Amino acid sequence: MRSSRRGTVDPFIVMDVMEAARAREAAGHRVIHMEVGQPGTAAPRLAREALARALQSDPLGYTVALGLPELRSRIAKLYGDWYNVDLDPARVVVTSGSSGGFVLAFTALFDAGDRVALGAPGYPSYRQILKALDLDPLEVQAAAENRFQPVPEDLAGHDFEGLLVASPANPTGTMLDRPALTRLVEAAQAKGAAFLSDEIYHGIEYDRKAVTALEISDDVVVINSFSKFFSMTGWRVGWLVVPDSHVRQVERLAQNLFICPPHVSQVAALAAMDAHEETEANLAVYTRNRELMRLGLPDAGFDRIAPPDGAFYFYADVSHLTSDSVTFAQEILDEAGVAVTPGLDFDPLRGAGTLRFSYARSTADIEEGLARLKAFMRKRGLARV
Amino acid sequence: MRSSRRGTVDPFIVMDVMEAARAREAAGHRVIHMEVGQPGTAAPRLAREALARALQSDPLGYTVALGLPELRSRIAKLYGDWYNVDLDPARVVVTSGSSGGFVLAFTALFDAGDRVALGAPGYPSYRQILKALDLDPLEVQAAAENRFQPVPEDLAGHDFEGLLVASPANPTGTMLDRPALTRLVEAAQAKGAAFLSDEIYHGIEYDRKAVTALEISDDVVVINSFSKFFSMTGWRVGWLVVPDSHVRQVERLAQNLFICPPHVSQVAALAAMDAHEETEANLAVYTRNRELMRLGLPDAGFDRIAPPDGAFYFYADVSHLTSDSVTFAQEILDEAGVAVTPGLDFDPLRGAGTLRFSYARSTADIEEGLARLKAFMRKRGLARV
Repeated sequence: MRSSRRGTVDPFIVMDVMEAARAREAAGHRVIHMEVGQPGTAAPRLAREALARALQSDPLGYTVALGLPELRSRIAKLYGDWYNVDLDPARVVVTSGSSGGFVLAFTALFDAGDRVALGAPGYPSYRQILKALDLDPLEVQAAAENRFQPVPEDLAGHDFEGLLVASPANPTGTMLDRPALTRLVEAAQAKGAAFLSDEIYHGIEYDRKAVTALEISDDVVVINSFSKFFSMTGWRVGWLVVPDSHVRQVERLAQNLFICPPHVSQVAALAAMDAHEETEANLAVYTRNRELMRLGLPDAGFDRIAPPDGAFYFYADVSHLTSDSVTFAQEILDEAGVAVTPGLDFDPLRGAGTLRFSYARSTADIEEGLARLKAFMRKRGLARV
Repeated sequence: MRSSRRGTVDPFIVMDVMEAARAREAAGHRVIHMEVGQPGTAAPRLAREALARALQSDPLGYTVALGLPELRSRIAKLYGDWYNVDLDPARVVVTSGSSGGFVLAFTALFDAGDRVALGAPGYPSYRQILKALDLDPLEVQAAAENRFQPVPEDLAGHDFEGLLVASPANPTGTMLDRPALTRLVEAAQAKGAAFLSDEIYHGIEYDRKAVTALEISDDVVVINSFSKFFSMTGWRVGWLVVPDSHVRQVERLAQNLFICPPHVSQVAALAAMDAHEETEANLAVYTRNRELMRLGLPDAGFDRIAPPDGAFYFYADVSHLTSDSVTFAQEILDEAGVAVTPGLDFDPLRGAGTLRFSYARSTADIEEGLARLKAFMRKRGLARV
C-alpha cells in the first residue's frame, strides 16, 4: 500500500536507549533511568480516589469537545493563583495531552507549507508533528550564551508564520524571563506570525517562577498538560489557552479530530489540581535531585552544564569527550548501567556532542546513578576525583 | 491572530439539536434522545473493576506508542473469534479512539492535496478530519438502491489516492456484504489507492455478521474502537490494523502525535473484551429497540426507511414531508420532545430531506419516543393510524 512523504518522521533515538535498557534489565542487571522524561510517581491520590468514585456512579460517556466546564474553570483559576492573570474559562480548551493540543493549535493556525520557527535544541516531536501536518519546521540554532533559548536576532532574515518556544525548556531546563519572552512575542507579532508558548513544565521551577506568555499578551496560544507537575503522563490530558477569536474554530476542530479528551482523565485531572500536598512533595524531590545533580555531574566530569531553572533535566556539552553521543550513551549504559539520552533527538546538528540527564526519578536512584557515572568516568580518567 | 484555511471546518448541526434539547430539559421538559450516537450504558463492570484495581497498584505512566502488548494480542484474538481471521498482533495499533486512528492512518498514507473517496451519506467527521489535514474529500453520492453504500460504478471517472468505507454505516446502519466489499477493495487496489475500512459498529449487527476487510485482503487499513460495542465512548480508545509494511511508520507517527493512548483506558478496554455477558445484554437491547423502530417508525408515518443491518440508527427519507430537515427536526423537538438529527450533517446535498433516528438508549425511551413521534405526526395528518 502507498505511504505518505509527510508520514516518514524520524525515529526517536531515546527509544533505542530505552529498548537497550529494557534488554539489560531482562538480562538481570539493574539500570538507573536517567533517560526518561516522566515522573516515576503515580497521579495524586486525590485524583485516583475521585476517579474510583466516578467509576461507580457516572457512565463517563463523551464530554463536550472543549472539556468538562468545571475543569475549564478550575484551570482558569490556576492562572490567577500562579500568575495573577485573570483568565476567562471560555478560552481554556481541555486536550488529549499536550500532543492533542499541538495538533489542534497547528491545524487551527497553519496551512500546508507554512513555516513554524523553533529553537534547537528542543522537544523532538515539535518538528515531527509539524512535518506530519505538512508544515515546515524552521529550526534556528539557539546559542549556548543565551542558555539555548532563541532570541529575536536568531530569527532575523527568516520568514515564518509561527514561532513556538518552551520555558522551562526540554532538554535544557532553561527559562525565558519576562523581558526575553516579551521580545519574542513582539518579534512574532511584528511579522504577523502566531506565537505559541509550551508551558508543560510550569510548576516545576526552582529559583524563580516561570512566566506565562499570557502575562504579556492575550494574542498567543499556550500549551500545557497534566503530565509533568501533576504527574499524569499516561492519562493524556492537557490544555490550551487560545485567544477569544479562536475558541469556536478550535472547538469545531476538536469535535471532529478528537470528539473529546478522555472523560476519566478529565475527572482525575480536576481532583489533581487540589492535591497540593502531593505535588509539593514531588517538587521537593526534584529540588533535592537537582541539587545532587548540580554537584554530582561536574564531580563525575560532566562539567559543561548550565543549572536548569525548571523541569527535571540537565543538558551537558560532552563534545570534548566524544564526537558521537549515541555510542557514548551506549557505553554508559553497558559499562555503568545508567541510561541517558544522546542529544541528537533534540538537536540534529549539534547533538552528537551533548547528553540529556533526567532527574525525575527517586532521590535514591539519582544518588546511585551519580555514583555509577563517576566510577565510569574515573576509569576513563575523566572524573574530577 | 492568524487562522488557517484548513481549520475552518463545518459545524455539526447535531450540536445545535443537542443544545436545544439541553435548553428544553433545563426548562423542565423531558426529552427523548434519538439524536445521540452513543450508548447510554457505562463501560462494562469488569472494565471498571480492572481499572479500580490498577489505580491502587500501577503508576499508569506512558505505555509504548503502539499500546499495551497484552491488549494488542487480545484484539488480534478477536479477529479469530469473530471472523476466523488469523491476525498477527504486531499489526494491531491501539489508538486514542477511532478519531486518533483516522489521524494516524491519514497522515501515514496521504500528503497534502491527496483525494480520499467517501460515500455520502456518511459520518461527517471523515470530511472534516480530511480537510483539517489538507486532504481533499471526494464525496460520491451513494444510491438509495444500493442502500446508500458506494459501488465501484460511483467512482468511475474519478481520481483518488484513498477510498474509505464504513460497514455497518452511520447514518444508515447498512452493511457491505463480502462480494460488495471485495469489489470496492479491488477497485481501490486497481488504482493504487489505499483502502480504509471503518468497522466501528462491528459486533452490533442483527441478521448476519459484518464482514471485515481483513477477510478479503491484508493490504488494507481497518479502523475500530471500543466506543460502540464495548460501550466506552468517553474513554477514547480504539485500534487500527495496518499492513506489516506500515507498522514502523505508524509507530513513529504515534510516538510523536500521541505518545500513547490513555493508559487507564487501555487497562479498562482489555478487561471489557471479556465482559461477554454485558456486551450481549446491550446487544439484546439494541435488537429489541430495532424491532420496535422497524414497526413504530412506519406506523408514525416515517415509512421510507431501510431496516438497518447493524449499528443503532434508522435513516429516513422525509423529502415528501419537508424540504428543510433542520426546521423539521426543530419542530419535532419543540412539539414532541424528541431530539432527532437532520440529515445535512451526513449528506450536504440530499440531507435536507432526511433524518437520522438513533435507538441506542433504553427500550423504555424508545417506546416513549415512538409514541411521541406518532402523536406529532398524527396531528399533522401524516401518521398511518
